[in-house]
Amino acid sequence: MVALKVFGQPASTDVARVLTCLFEKNLEFQLIRIDTFKGEHRIPEFLRLQDPAGRVTFKDGKLTLVDSRYICRHISEKYPDEGNKTLFGTGILERALVEQWLQSEALTFEPPSSTLVFHLAFAAPLGFHPDRSLIEKNEKKLARVLDTYEWRLGENEYLAGDEFTLADLSHLPNAHYLVPKTERGRKLFTARKNVDRWWKAISSRPSWKQVVQMQCEHPGQLEKLNV
Amino acid sequence: MVALKVFGQPASTDVARVLTCLFEKNLEFQLIRIDTFKGEHRIPEFLRLQDPAGRVTFKDGKLTLVDSRYICRHISEKYPDEGNKTLFGTGILERALVEQWLQSEALTFEPPSSTLVFHLAFAAPLGFHPDRSLIEKNEKKLARVLDTYEWRLGENEYLAGDEFTLADLSHLPNAHYLVPKTERGRKLFTARKNVDRWWKAISSRPSWKQVVQMQCEHPGQLEKLNV
Repeated sequence: MVALKVFGQPASTDVARVLTCLFEKNLEFQLIRIDTFKGEHRIPEFLRLQDPAGRVTFKDGKLTLVDSRYICRHISEKYPDEGNKTLFGTGILERALVEQWLQSEALTFEPPSSTLVFHLAFAAPLGFHPDRSLIEKNEKKLARVLDTYEWRLGENEYLAGDEFTLADLSHLPNAHYLVPKTERGRKLFTARKNVDRWWKAISSRPSWKQVVQMQCEHPGQLEKLNV
Repeated sequence: MVALKVFGQPASTDVARVLTCLFEKNLEFQLIRIDTFKGEHRIPEFLRLQDPAGRVTFKDGKLTLVDSRYICRHISEKYPDEGNKTLFGTGILERALVEQWLQSEALTFEPPSSTLVFHLAFAAPLGFHPDRSLIEKNEKKLARVLDTYEWRLGENEYLAGDEFTLADLSHLPNAHYLVPKTERGRKLFTARKNVDRWWKAISSRPSWKQVVQMQCEHPGQLEKLNV
């Protein structure tokens, strides 16, 4: 019996965050994906990415959890000796720093970047008009966030110090839809030397590459999204 | 709520048979796949293809069915007016012919072809020595079966008459592992003019191409299997 189960599609940013954490921790788990087909067409799952139903569900034995960052914390705390042992910091101080930057990701990085992902990458294929003023507004917001990161990453290799932690990991799913897939998103990262180095380092980790591979296996219309 | 649910991997011949039938009937359904990972590695599902656990489970509301050919019969009978309406024959005589050739597939085509698939395509990547005498024995068996098909397909476009039916459909999953993926399997088909024409016709149906696409999305080690 496999105790750890993830329900969802790897294309969902929340699912991708949890999968990356599980790969970093080298844990055995099952991924349960449900695809809906009608005739020869897959009903695109990414329609649900903006929607509560697109969120991840995680089971650890009888325990069921739903928030992706909370799931990552749970995995790191419950399985400290598996795989990457420094993912949630190595002491009280380090953990506090991971926690601080993990919250910064959730509160300051995620909102503008997910809006940009939607309007730069998802809107057009879904038949929506991308909202230009919303794009500009969120581009400015994200630029300010990344300015802080640029400063921080000039002092440290990674956000919470010299080790890759949950704080860095948590940025991967949204950044992946922005940087390789949209010109405007990419420029926000490459224009900042330390952010660019950091992005290259975190996105080349085997754990993340495996998740990208799993997303490619279910491209849906995502492969069209080179905006 | 989607009433029709398929549990399994498209790479399984039993799952592929049911999926093809559902695509032919243009029915809405959900595919539930469960992948087991350990660290960065997917634990290959095709290890289970020879195993009862690799078999397909189908749910239609509260009804649960397990035999792939039985599931195809059920779908065709319960949803006669959806999609392909001639899949299970159009009258009593036609249905009897479909039934006869469907049984022939299960009793005479499937056993030698699945043994050949295993020894020509799966054995080596799994670390088994392919059994040469078993290959030769089953090649002869399959050749005799295909001689009967060659005669039958000289009289009719398809096995049960002039329409593509479940009888033809049922051959696709095993034939697909033999013909495009193994040199010796391919020769058994191309050496017979009518069988060759029939294979080209049935394997180019959109329903089957969709299933092949789904198998490609979960290649596991199957992509290495160009023996």
